[in-house]
Amino acid sequence: MSVTAAQGFTAAGIAAGIKENGNPDLALVVNTGPRRAAAGVFTANRVKAAPVLWSEQVLKSGQVSAVVLNSGGANACTGPKGFQDAHATAEKAAEVLGRGAIEVAVCSTGLIGLLLPMDKLLPGVETAAAQLSEHGGEKAAIAIKTTDTVHKTSVVTWGSPRTESGGGWTVGGMAKGAGMLAPGLATMLVVLTTDADLDNEVLDKALRAATRTTFDRVDSDGCMSTNDTVLLLASGAAGVTPEYEEFAEAVRQVCDDLGQQLIRDAEGASKDIKVEVINAATEDDAVEVGRSIARNNLLKCAIHGEDPNWGRVLSAIGTTKAAFGPDRLNVAINGVWVCKNGGVGEDRDKVDMRYREVHIVADLAAGSETATIWTNDLTADYVHENSAYSS
Amino acid sequence: MSVTAAQGFTAAGIAAGIKENGNPDLALVVNTGPRRAAAGVFTANRVKAAPVLWSEQVLKSGQVSAVVLNSGGANACTGPKGFQDAHATAEKAAEVLGRGAIEVAVCSTGLIGLLLPMDKLLPGVETAAAQLSEHGGEKAAIAIKTTDTVHKTSVVTWGSPRTESGGGWTVGGMAKGAGMLAPGLATMLVVLTTDADLDNEVLDKALRAATRTTFDRVDSDGCMSTNDTVLLLASGAAGVTPEYEEFAEAVRQVCDDLGQQLIRDAEGASKDIKVEVINAATEDDAVEVGRSIARNNLLKCAIHGEDPNWGRVLSAIGTTKAAFGPDRLNVAINGVWVCKNGGVGEDRDKVDMRYREVHIVADLAAGSETATIWTNDLTADYVHENSAYSS
Repeated sequence: MSVTAAQGFTAAGIAAGIKENGNPDLALVVNTGPRRAAAGVFTANRVKAAPVLWSEQVLKSGQVSAVVLNSGGANACTGPKGFQDAHATAEKAAEVLGRGAIEVAVCSTGLIGLLLPMDKLLPGVETAAAQLSEHGGEKAAIAIKTTDTVHKTSVVTWGSPRTESGGGWTVGGMAKGAGMLAPGLATMLVVLTTDADLDNEVLDKALRAATRTTFDRVDSDGCMSTNDTVLLLASGAAGVTPEYEEFAEAVRQVCDDLGQQLIRDAEGASKDIKVEVINAATEDDAVEVGRSIARNNLLKCAIHGEDPNWGRVLSAIGTTKAAFGPDRLNVAINGVWVCKNGGVGEDRDKVDMRYREVHIVADLAAGSETATIWTNDLTADYVHENSAYSS
Repeated sequence: MSVTAAQGFTAAGIAAGIKENGNPDLALVVNTGPRRAAAGVFTANRVKAAPVLWSEQVLKSGQVSAVVLNSGGANACTGPKGFQDAHATAEKAAEVLGRGAIEVAVCSTGLIGLLLPMDKLLPGVETAAAQLSEHGGEKAAIAIKTTDTVHKTSVVTWGSPRTESGGGWTVGGMAKGAGMLAPGLATMLVVLTTDADLDNEVLDKALRAATRTTFDRVDSDGCMSTNDTVLLLASGAAGVTPEYEEFAEAVRQVCDDLGQQLIRDAEGASKDIKVEVINAATEDDAVEVGRSIARNNLLKCAIHGEDPNWGRVLSAIGTTKAAFGPDRLNVAINGVWVCKNGGVGEDRDKVDMRYREVHIVADLAAGSETATIWTNDLTADYVHENSAYSS
């Protein structure tokens, strides 16, 4: 169902010829109203792709009528021409949709440092517009894939489903992302839609709250992209204004679900690693420690080898500024407390690591705050995929 | 020549049976005087191995008569028993050498979280003491290897060589390290010796100045160990007190040479990558940017694939807090300016990446400071070696 699960949205996904292999590479999502409220969160990378710079401006305009997304090229580090291309893409969509260009967000993903083939992209926008449909969400989700092996969608419906009258509202979304997954957004393009009737301020608050504990805590390979974008569009078509807490929870659920799908499809990964930091003095400490563990290449290799190498967990904790005493640290891997009080704990041979999900608990014994960071193992397949990516 | 190149030192390296495969695993370095001055730099990791905690105390005592080093076990995260073992090792060496235990530094390397086999280590200290020789430097260097494929030594002699009378002095050293190579010392054990007649304060100043721009800028895999130790021992046996600048330069040269040997022997690496940051506003900015580039897994994979993927360099720069303008960044790979003014530069096909050394220059166009960080590519071999390390 994806971005068209909520009422008031149409979408399309087509092959415009941007990708040389002929796979789908252009998606269009349109908010048909009545409302066109929106919020967005963008990469924290200071080197921002042209479409990010453009879409940040669009968000400031106060409403978003459509989003054009392409795979097959990131339009990042492309200078003034790259920005002109992002602008021209919005202009073209605005023209065919009868809206203003400043209401059209643009997202791109693919290789950095290449100009987009505008002679293919602009006709593609026309083709996609002609195929817009209330059932186009899946096709749109497929068209934004790069190295993704599957397309990612998620839907949460509150109250009655959309087919019945009154009361219900929906949050749906699509995501792409398989590499360059790191915080300050896990690298991704995400479009969320809702038919709830809400203003920009509420959308922004709910979106930031949701991304902070979901996408921002997915850290597959520590590499932050230039193109990360998460957009939330609201059509108001359900005619319902939900309670903030309910709405925020629905957005969080969809973000969490999509974030999990990103981790499960991370490039070359054979394990999904849940790093749970408990009993931290502050949430910031918990996040810092979780990230340090999640980014430790040696640990990620050990997990790949199904080796419960807790020494590498302690070594990673030791590089942080978090409050802890080295002789009070405890570490569990898949439920076995292999490290107690900073030293040897239960028998490491008890740890069963045969399954894809691995759960590491790091107990800082310094307070009561907690945070969970998701990452993947480091594999030869990851190396192979990323050695050959641009060639 | 190693640690016995300078006068006033003896050394030995033996197989004590700590390693199950029977390879050499215990080294002893003794300062025979007349002076026993010393300086040390230890890991910045807050989780410190027992021998680091012990040796930090030894340094405070004011003189170091001997260093016992073992491979085959890091004695890290081993609790009070681990500290007792480090202490007992120093006691044993002190006993056989007729010195005080508080003058004996201890260094260990190997797997974290295992107690050392003291029933093998302590008799090993006696055996090593019986084999101490002015020609024992090579054997000592061999005995501290873990996954190192070669042993590492370096010597700089100023003025006349040691065999002649008067004027000359020497700095020599040995190092081990092939994995967990990251700043705040690249993971390693290093013992440097000199026959120059200098006090602790001068040694400390020269050692810190040298490590700051050499070992501290070797960042093979971003992982900081619990056991990093660099010791500098001075015997005064040459009867010469060199000028500070000359001595500091000699120490720097030996550290730089050993650091380069560590990079060239890094686990699984096929490329040595020199990341040179130029025109930074401050040296700290240059170091931060250099480290960010050096730690970018995607870039390290690309270099492995001989792919001059400069977009990943810009993406890494963008995650830092350094002063720069995204549209003023320039990047050269092996002499070709593939990125100019934040966008596409010279033809990337001109970049020749067939050789082991790869030179990346990142021009921040924000000042005149510079720093160079050395790293390695990320390879399937790295993954394989570190997936199977403890099993």
